[in-house]
Amino acid sequence: MAGTDSKQPLVSRAGPKVVLIKAQMGENIGACARAMANFGLHDMRLVAPRDGWPNESARPMASRADHVLDRVEVFAKTEDALADIQYVYATTARQRDMSKPVFTPHEAAADMQARVAAGEACAILFGGERAGLDNNDVVAANAVIHIPADPTFSSLNLAQAVLLVGYEWFQTLDGVDELIRPGIKSPPAKAAEIAFFFERLEDELTKGGFLHPPEKKPAMVRNVRNIFQRVGLTDQDVRTLQGIISGLIRRRGDKS
Amino acid sequence: MAGTDSKQPLVSRAGPKVVLIKAQMGENIGACARAMANFGLHDMRLVAPRDGWPNESARPMASRADHVLDRVEVFAKTEDALADIQYVYATTARQRDMSKPVFTPHEAAADMQARVAAGEACAILFGGERAGLDNNDVVAANAVIHIPADPTFSSLNLAQAVLLVGYEWFQTLDGVDELIRPGIKSPPAKAAEIAFFFERLEDELTKGGFLHPPEKKPAMVRNVRNIFQRVGLTDQDVRTLQGIISGLIRRRGDKS
Repeated sequence: MAGTDSKQPLVSRAGPKVVLIKAQMGENIGACARAMANFGLHDMRLVAPRDGWPNESARPMASRADHVLDRVEVFAKTEDALADIQYVYATTARQRDMSKPVFTPHEAAADMQARVAAGEACAILFGGERAGLDNNDVVAANAVIHIPADPTFSSLNLAQAVLLVGYEWFQTLDGVDELIRPGIKSPPAKAAEIAFFFERLEDELTKGGFLHPPEKKPAMVRNVRNIFQRVGLTDQDVRTLQGIISGLIRRRGDKS
Repeated sequence: MAGTDSKQPLVSRAGPKVVLIKAQMGENIGACARAMANFGLHDMRLVAPRDGWPNESARPMASRADHVLDRVEVFAKTEDALADIQYVYATTARQRDMSKPVFTPHEAAADMQARVAAGEACAILFGGERAGLDNNDVVAANAVIHIPADPTFSSLNLAQAVLLVGYEWFQTLDGVDELIRPGIKSPPAKAAEIAFFFERLEDELTKGGFLHPPEKKPAMVRNVRNIFQRVGLTDQDVRTLQGIISGLIRRRGDKS
């Protein structure tokens, strides 16, 4: 899909279709394609794009998401674009009194994931740059996605709205946590290794006269141990700290 | 803050600072300002912006987030920009083996919200367009924010990264749910109203010969009731449906 990249995409299963209704600028369509590709969405449908399709001003902004642009489907009317769809989400910036479920992007993603997993064909509608979705398009939807933003500055551009909804969709996929934390490279240190480090540290600190006078030593030792325990030491950390002790001892030896 | 808009922002409390390190394009700095304003973030710091500051190519892309641009602070070095900061998050696109906490934007926002509420000064670092943060900047941070994206197409632009982190921050604020669902305009219908509607509907359907033969009537009634019960009817919905019955009866009368 993405050219020469040898990594595997996280999903092969079809995600929701992204339906842009009366999008105006080719650049924005391209930016939407990029945002979709970032989050594993590959199916874009355009309804009555202002400047027709294909539109070569989309490509530079797609930033190599050519695989999304190359399979865009174009429709004259919203109802045609939704003919094979079973559950439709309308993304709106404004409140509409429509008596249908209103989801945040986070809630919508969970709902969508369950539907897609059950084999339902889902689509997410986004309106044009100027006016967003018109009421008829919202009526055609089963649910509304409302992106919460600062009431004094709530205007998101089209690609940003697609990005946020795509981002939430992606978070619901299996394997995302492994992307973020792909196995800890150095495992947490065992208590015995940490105890051994503390004993050596305290022994050397005592030799250096730091843990003095003796009646204050227990409290000082506790303070020192607390500092290092807060770190959540790994095996590698303990080795590094042992090296630091060795280095500092050598320097002390030089001076004496 | 946002000019003539009379709505109240959701936050007055200081949020985290957004620190852009070696940002290149003024346009991208402007787009970051807009993304920040969308999500209630107002404090931007620039470290060594390539084209200096102020940079008038930032303003059109800020799309009226002038209040963010007007209070930008500029620093020569990352350490200067972080001098008064108590907890630093570094946003990275790539894995780094740094043995420090790795958060998703969602997790980072919760952590940040708790720190800000406790009066801690927090900052979020974002690297330049080409290379992201260098390792020294990541070392200077207390934690890493990693945005999960499709491994085959994981490159987010700068403003998109700011948008996603800002979006998650905003979701943690009090009052967000009220923005999305500001009181249901029409309350859910009471069971008695729905029962009255069903009785009338079934009465009219019987007169129309639809609920026939009589031995199948109970199952047919159940099916009809199930359809409408799934809707989650409001007062207004029930009034609309009563109107539909009246309308259909009138038409039937016309024909007979």
